[in-house]
Amino acid sequence: METLSLPLDPAEELHEECGIFGIVKAPSNLAGAAQDSREPVYDTYNALYTLQHRGQDSCGIAACIDGSIRLHKDQGLVPEVFSQKGLDRLVGASAAIGHVRHANNIADVNPLNAQPIVVHRTIGSMALCYNGKLVNSMQLRIEMESRGAIFQTTNDAEIITYLIVREHLRTNTLEDAVINAMEYMIGAYSVVVMSQDEMVAFRDPNGFRPLCLGRVGDSYVFASESAAIDALGGELIRDVHPGELISIRNGSLTSQFCRVKAAKSALCMFELIYFARQDSVIDGTTIGDVREEAGRYLARNSTVDGDLVIGVPDSGLAAALGYARESGIPYGIGLVKNRYIARTFIQSSTWERRNALRIKLNANSSVVKGKRVILVDDSIVRGKTSARIVQLLRDAGATEVHMKVTAPPFRHPCYYGTAIPSGEQLAAYDRTEEEVCRLIGADSLQYMPLEGLRHLSEKLNLNYCDACFTGNYILPVPHLHFQEGQKL
Amino acid sequence: METLSLPLDPAEELHEECGIFGIVKAPSNLAGAAQDSREPVYDTYNALYTLQHRGQDSCGIAACIDGSIRLHKDQGLVPEVFSQKGLDRLVGASAAIGHVRHANNIADVNPLNAQPIVVHRTIGSMALCYNGKLVNSMQLRIEMESRGAIFQTTNDAEIITYLIVREHLRTNTLEDAVINAMEYMIGAYSVVVMSQDEMVAFRDPNGFRPLCLGRVGDSYVFASESAAIDALGGELIRDVHPGELISIRNGSLTSQFCRVKAAKSALCMFELIYFARQDSVIDGTTIGDVREEAGRYLARNSTVDGDLVIGVPDSGLAAALGYARESGIPYGIGLVKNRYIARTFIQSSTWERRNALRIKLNANSSVVKGKRVILVDDSIVRGKTSARIVQLLRDAGATEVHMKVTAPPFRHPCYYGTAIPSGEQLAAYDRTEEEVCRLIGADSLQYMPLEGLRHLSEKLNLNYCDACFTGNYILPVPHLHFQEGQKL
Amino acid sequence: METLSLPLDPAEELHEECGIFGIVKAPSNLAGAAQDSREPVYDTYNALYTLQHRGQDSCGIAACIDGSIRLHKDQGLVPEVFSQKGLDRLVGASAAIGHVRHANNIADVNPLNAQPIVVHRTIGSMALCYNGKLVNSMQLRIEMESRGAIFQTTNDAEIITYLIVREHLRTNTLEDAVINAMEYMIGAYSVVVMSQDEMVAFRDPNGFRPLCLGRVGDSYVFASESAAIDALGGELIRDVHPGELISIRNGSLTSQFCRVKAAKSALCMFELIYFARQDSVIDGTTIGDVREEAGRYLARNSTVDGDLVIGVPDSGLAAALGYARESGIPYGIGLVKNRYIARTFIQSSTWERRNALRIKLNANSSVVKGKRVILVDDSIVRGKTSARIVQLLRDAGATEVHMKVTAPPFRHPCYYGTAIPSGEQLAAYDRTEEEVCRLIGADSLQYMPLEGLRHLSEKLNLNYCDACFTGNYILPVPHLHFQEGQKL
Amino acid sequence: METLSLPLDPAEELHEECGIFGIVKAPSNLAGAAQDSREPVYDTYNALYTLQHRGQDSCGIAACIDGSIRLHKDQGLVPEVFSQKGLDRLVGASAAIGHVRHANNIADVNPLNAQPIVVHRTIGSMALCYNGKLVNSMQLRIEMESRGAIFQTTNDAEIITYLIVREHLRTNTLEDAVINAMEYMIGAYSVVVMSQDEMVAFRDPNGFRPLCLGRVGDSYVFASESAAIDALGGELIRDVHPGELISIRNGSLTSQFCRVKAAKSALCMFELIYFARQDSVIDGTTIGDVREEAGRYLARNSTVDGDLVIGVPDSGLAAALGYARESGIPYGIGLVKNRYIARTFIQSSTWERRNALRIKLNANSSVVKGKRVILVDDSIVRGKTSARIVQLLRDAGATEVHMKVTAPPFRHPCYYGTAIPSGEQLAAYDRTEEEVCRLIGADSLQYMPLEGLRHLSEKLNLNYCDACFTGNYILPVPHLHFQEGQKL
Repeated sequence: METLSLPLDPAEELHEECGIFGIVKAPSNLAGAAQDSREPVYDTYNALYTLQHRGQDSCGIAACIDGSIRLHKDQGLVPEVFSQKGLDRLVGASAAIGHVRHANNIADVNPLNAQPIVVHRTIGSMALCYNGKLVNSMQLRIEMESRGAIFQTTNDAEIITYLIVREHLRTNTLEDAVINAMEYMIGAYSVVVMSQDEMVAFRDPNGFRPLCLGRVGDSYVFASESAAIDALGGELIRDVHPGELISIRNGSLTSQFCRVKAAKSALCMFELIYFARQDSVIDGTTIGDVREEAGRYLARNSTVDGDLVIGVPDSGLAAALGYARESGIPYGIGLVKNRYIARTFIQSSTWERRNALRIKLNANSSVVKGKRVILVDDSIVRGKTSARIVQLLRDAGATEVHMKVTAPPFRHPCYYGTAIPSGEQLAAYDRTEEEVCRLIGADSLQYMPLEGLRHLSEKLNLNYCDACFTGNYILPVPHLHFQEGQKL
Repeated sequence: METLSLPLDPAEELHEECGIFGIVKAPSNLAGAAQDSREPVYDTYNALYTLQHRGQDSCGIAACIDGSIRLHKDQGLVPEVFSQKGLDRLVGASAAIGHVRHANNIADVNPLNAQPIVVHRTIGSMALCYNGKLVNSMQLRIEMESRGAIFQTTNDAEIITYLIVREHLRTNTLEDAVINAMEYMIGAYSVVVMSQDEMVAFRDPNGFRPLCLGRVGDSYVFASESAAIDALGGELIRDVHPGELISIRNGSLTSQFCRVKAAKSALCMFELIYFARQDSVIDGTTIGDVREEAGRYLARNSTVDGDLVIGVPDSGLAAALGYARESGIPYGIGLVKNRYIARTFIQSSTWERRNALRIKLNANSSVVKGKRVILVDDSIVRGKTSARIVQLLRDAGATEVHMKVTAPPFRHPCYYGTAIPSGEQLAAYDRTEEEVCRLIGADSLQYMPLEGLRHLSEKLNLNYCDACFTGNYILPVPHLHFQEGQKL
Repeated sequence: METLSLPLDPAEELHEECGIFGIVKAPSNLAGAAQDSREPVYDTYNALYTLQHRGQDSCGIAACIDGSIRLHKDQGLVPEVFSQKGLDRLVGASAAIGHVRHANNIADVNPLNAQPIVVHRTIGSMALCYNGKLVNSMQLRIEMESRGAIFQTTNDAEIITYLIVREHLRTNTLEDAVINAMEYMIGAYSVVVMSQDEMVAFRDPNGFRPLCLGRVGDSYVFASESAAIDALGGELIRDVHPGELISIRNGSLTSQFCRVKAAKSALCMFELIYFARQDSVIDGTTIGDVREEAGRYLARNSTVDGDLVIGVPDSGLAAALGYARESGIPYGIGLVKNRYIARTFIQSSTWERRNALRIKLNANSSVVKGKRVILVDDSIVRGKTSARIVQLLRDAGATEVHMKVTAPPFRHPCYYGTAIPSGEQLAAYDRTEEEVCRLIGADSLQYMPLEGLRHLSEKLNLNYCDACFTGNYILPVPHLHFQEGQKL
Repeated sequence: METLSLPLDPAEELHEECGIFGIVKAPSNLAGAAQDSREPVYDTYNALYTLQHRGQDSCGIAACIDGSIRLHKDQGLVPEVFSQKGLDRLVGASAAIGHVRHANNIADVNPLNAQPIVVHRTIGSMALCYNGKLVNSMQLRIEMESRGAIFQTTNDAEIITYLIVREHLRTNTLEDAVINAMEYMIGAYSVVVMSQDEMVAFRDPNGFRPLCLGRVGDSYVFASESAAIDALGGELIRDVHPGELISIRNGSLTSQFCRVKAAKSALCMFELIYFARQDSVIDGTTIGDVREEAGRYLARNSTVDGDLVIGVPDSGLAAALGYARESGIPYGIGLVKNRYIARTFIQSSTWERRNALRIKLNANSSVVKGKRVILVDDSIVRGKTSARIVQLLRDAGATEVHMKVTAPPFRHPCYYGTAIPSGEQLAAYDRTEEEVCRLIGADSLQYMPLEGLRHLSEKLNLNYCDACFTGNYILPVPHLHFQEGQKL
């Protein structure tokens, strides 16, 4: 018997690389500030809990206590990595940053690859968290190695740290070092850096990945998503703008922009469609509203009729509701998700792996039986999960299953931080829509057209990156990838 | 600083005591049976995963392998208790039973109190899993102690085991032993018992707790909820009837009824309203349908108007949808639940405990802002969680919050297996509806009236127990409780 | 590649079944007693640490707090089972008992089989720890089962608990119940029982297993070995006599003897030779002195000459020193033991298993090179370990290796609590001394003769059981063993 | 109640910083080599087990598999860090290196500070293990930082890695890079470096820390102590000489010497007296022999008489035996050590901490009662442990206790890798021998005189470093220490 301990259909899911967070307490001598009794480490812990959907492989917190930086990071979910004892070691901080991470491959699952990265320097330590992907990381790496740099991880975060540290040698302030470093960085990056007296947050000129600024009591916070600010009872101030650097020192905020100008801002479409929580506000738009509007768009352009609209939980629900509202077809809860499903799930055989979806998701027969079901999901990756959900619904008595997907067909690799399977594994790689429809066994299939994305963009006043659908890459595609011992 | 490691608002939630499961492979010599390659231990593991919502404190599996019974049980969630290694020890079984358990109090969280209970006998071992609560457990215990019995747990399961073993001494079959034992058992019980050549499942004459029979491939299964059968890709055959005993031996089923006749069947109303998964079918009714109908009833009898109906996830969603459909007010996803929230969650202070709900649940401001919100939940226990949710919605911009509760006010203790806080802790204990409304800070409050329950009962052809609302106990209330060293 | 996670040569070692301990604080109202601030749970933890050599498979502590008994037990070594949190739950006790256990077989390694056993009774709880083996456990078990008893473990401790509880139903005091119960118990047993207001310790009429009484501050303690009393800074008062029962209630001691008279006292010879720590005093004799005298006896009766005497650590060292002193041959430290070796040790292949001894034990070449080595060990079980040690010494340059064994050849099973492999596995089972000598590859082999044991006995005024050497069983040999589902 | 989880008297013990190990399989095409089926990862695991006494805080293994390097390291003892699964990930290697580490302070206990350090380079990865302490690490660090280096640990290992990588940029071979790097390294260092096709081991010009070369089957191994080679069933070839570099490539060995010439070789005296296992051979001398000779020297120069010589286990035993042999006073086993004592040991109060020694060590009253005891130990650090042992012996009935210490008084800090408490904490810091004698409560105290060390040195033909006794530092004392954020 073949036995494996595997995540559920890992290749079926798109993965975000990271969630980041930072908090700076108001200085105690700040005029007007009440005695701020917050514990940055607990706020960071709570925030990481809220950002957990952005990365489940490892996590960590670095806290600045009495001018030095303490670090706790390891593989695992937030509650696995942080015990009471682990948190207590970080209590008493004036500032803290934290990170949740998705590993791209199994070799990558290593406590050393976890973030934050902390650098111990004689001029003061520095900690850094990063979400994104540099297009030119390999060039930077080779160049740095040629000057004697050593890399203990395979993370871009280490490269960015090197860049900032190098620039800091010839600048007076951390901000200036970052502004200089940004000239060398090409790609997607949202970063929070903390030194013993300063926190700096910055976002790449295209704004591929989200990053926002908020206030919790008298503390300032940065977060990948505003839901983390809500979780602390705080309020969103605004997004960090593409290309902007915000620094906090002695309780005051400074903003400046990097010298690199981007052709256009280009938020990752999948943040909107799938990654982010529906209650997060990114670049001025609530994610749930984007999804509802996507559902409405599909409804307006649909040619099939149905008796019931259901969404694949959790990311498909808002779109399904939008579809239902626009079409007038009743919305129902046709799929029930197991809320206790763990990251690892032991399966004894191929048979069980094939059926693992049933443990995670069940169709409510009473809801779908005898119905022509409109099924709304955010994307089709390899198609296997979609095929199983369609079958689940048929087994439960659905007479027809019409698949509605709020993203266009996935055909191109992402170089900006989304872990999309390579070409041939994608359902839409060399299949027409009709072929994908047959692959997943649906009665009909409607993808969001590129035109639909444009509509969304206009309606919501949002620019976005659609390279994975169109192959139109905003930044150059990397031609070098890191491989150990390769001859260059 | 006060630091605690606590479940989120444990006293705020109602708890089910247990979920049970059993599977018997078809005998290999069964005519017409294909070679059955199922592994009962993996099926049980998957089923317990699906029943995890019925108990998160401990779990266990007993497997019958080559005529002897092996046991693995411990505190923790299913994925915590069962590693690959732990499962492998139970591979090769002909039958297995499993259990998930909620502990009533902290002293109770003890690996010894976990189930199944396994009895090693010279005439062959026996394993037992149980969900419910005996009203006369103390009398039985005292009587057994007076005959020399020893109790290593504080579980009724041990009492039931004693009863069956004692009766088995004077009967030929396990079924007869069980039938006899049922004469002594007063209260709520759904039980699965396994000996080396037989599995017996039985349910109390009132049918307080659910139990159903299904088929997965050539194997028969018993489960607290049909969702566990769905998860295995099997099919529900029917419920075990109140007072019925079903036994499986050599691949064939036998049914008989106990000699005790119940005045009426009386499924626990909270199974319908809160405990069970909405995709489970209990006593012929899909739980989601009951909840939707409850929502509809409230809508029909509501006197307030609103702009949006939202449900508290997950158990309030179906009712909210029903309310929306009946009232014509739009349904929305106004509350977003963190899907990674763990059983234990470290909180540093009173302040954080008060705000812990925000980590678990967030209001989607974009959805509720400026709206008169109809908020649908399954129950109000102490009222604190309800108050925080109401406040969350107001903070997010809701102009009015009207609370709709699909259960009547909770005023009486449950003696049949639901862990309801004691009287004074209940919001409705000595408060009028108006007072509860003020307590939770809502603009209005509508409870399900007792008349509404009767309506549901008729419409869905279901009998139920409403003692916690009415104080009308179907069975006598116990006058003795176990307390160590008490003088009797 | 075959990989296994195994203890080091488990079958090569003799195992003690258990170590037990109990402590009762002086009552606070005791005249003349200073305020006793001891924490029984910490004393028990420290004592179990000191008794760890008597059992490494599981351990537990039961503590009496405010009249009720709390239990913590699990598989593992003392530091593995007890965290700070686990100990804290037991703080504040007036009395506590504890246990370390060796499991006879792998199926036996089960948290349920751990001790203490705690019985929850309406008349007050009771906890029990036990070391030994009943000869008639099967008869007792069958008889109890016929009256409706259920057994959740395969431990004799559960049988003894039943006996005491049954007798307690018809006696006024726990002591009387125990005195009655002892009439039914045939075999080796040292037991500590605790109720909410009393602790009772008793030892079988033959005194097979040790048990002593001591005082630590104002507290009384019972322990398998006096080393545990030393570890607490206390003093040994005396041994519990064979057949004696000592009870402590309200700070005062009572002693009485059971009605069963033994033909003779018969301490297990292996307690003296191998199991007990050399600093323990059992039945008036320090274990190290017995071993030294055994070495001396062998030296006086040896016919071979040598240049160096070395002992196999740790139990062979005292005997080696005695041999050296008596013979005038220099004592040396020729074998060095790894002090970090763990219970489980991962070995990748047969080859590694064969060489695992080297990780545990190394020969000091500088000490043994060119020497005729007198090697002293406590016993030869299967002979494989002895053969490897002999080879280790030859590889390190010893010119001759003369094996001296402080026990006679092992030829008969033990029914009184020592886990001796079955007959055919024993080196001496059907081999002459010359054949065993060849088996282990030594130049000569000298066993302790039975006459030597008699000499020791007289010199040290000790009676002992030598059934494993002679087959002369003091008590009847059991003819029934427990097997699940066996037809009787 | 104050509760702490602490190592036993950590400040009382001297600590070695590390143990290192490396193994290179014979290339499969090596003429005459049998098919070598060794698994380097298992050999390394076994070797680290044997070197565990040199560091218990963290450990790790890096394995070269198919040209890339995989790493597993974490906090904890070898059996805690390496599960079967962890080892299996490293199976199939052609070479491996491993490390056990002692952390100097609690902040230092961090998985990131564990070794090996692995550097991922485009020209091929590299792993490094290190034992020692650089005197000029701070200067090197500052200089490297000024060129843009980042330090993620506070380990010298990272500095050495940088040096080698930097030099490798301008040399053709790893050996040349190391030879160059050694010119910058001042202090104590024994290092093993592994690239995908080579292993290089080198030792500082003074040879402060041990390092030896051996052969196991057809594989070459490097180890801090020869006991690790014995454990694998291999043979010691010779020590790596001070200032020597040995490299292994394609199965052949090359030796060369660094260009830095040392005034003299200077093995750390504490390796001889305390750190190393007594069965290890370092620089041609078996450690046990040094200790025996130290005991003999003390005996020859002693002015007190006694009835019994006992050693403090384990490092004092060989010296005690030497003392006994030389003086003619009988050797005895007067102190018994608990072999199960764990690294962490929970103590509830000051009282318990004071008495924790008793759990670890017990006096055998029967051996010492009424005797004038000669007590031999390797060193007196703060004096508290010595005082407790003296008291233990008096409590057990010793009439006199005469302390013999095989090292001179400890008065100066060590800058070469031994974690000696700072000056004022040392018993001998500002006390005369008479005052130390009173501090520890002995009847007399004899330290090894410096003259005695010279005697040992001549007799055993060994050079050594005695700076901690004399303050005569062979290398310059560092004037800069790393402190985060310090102004320089």
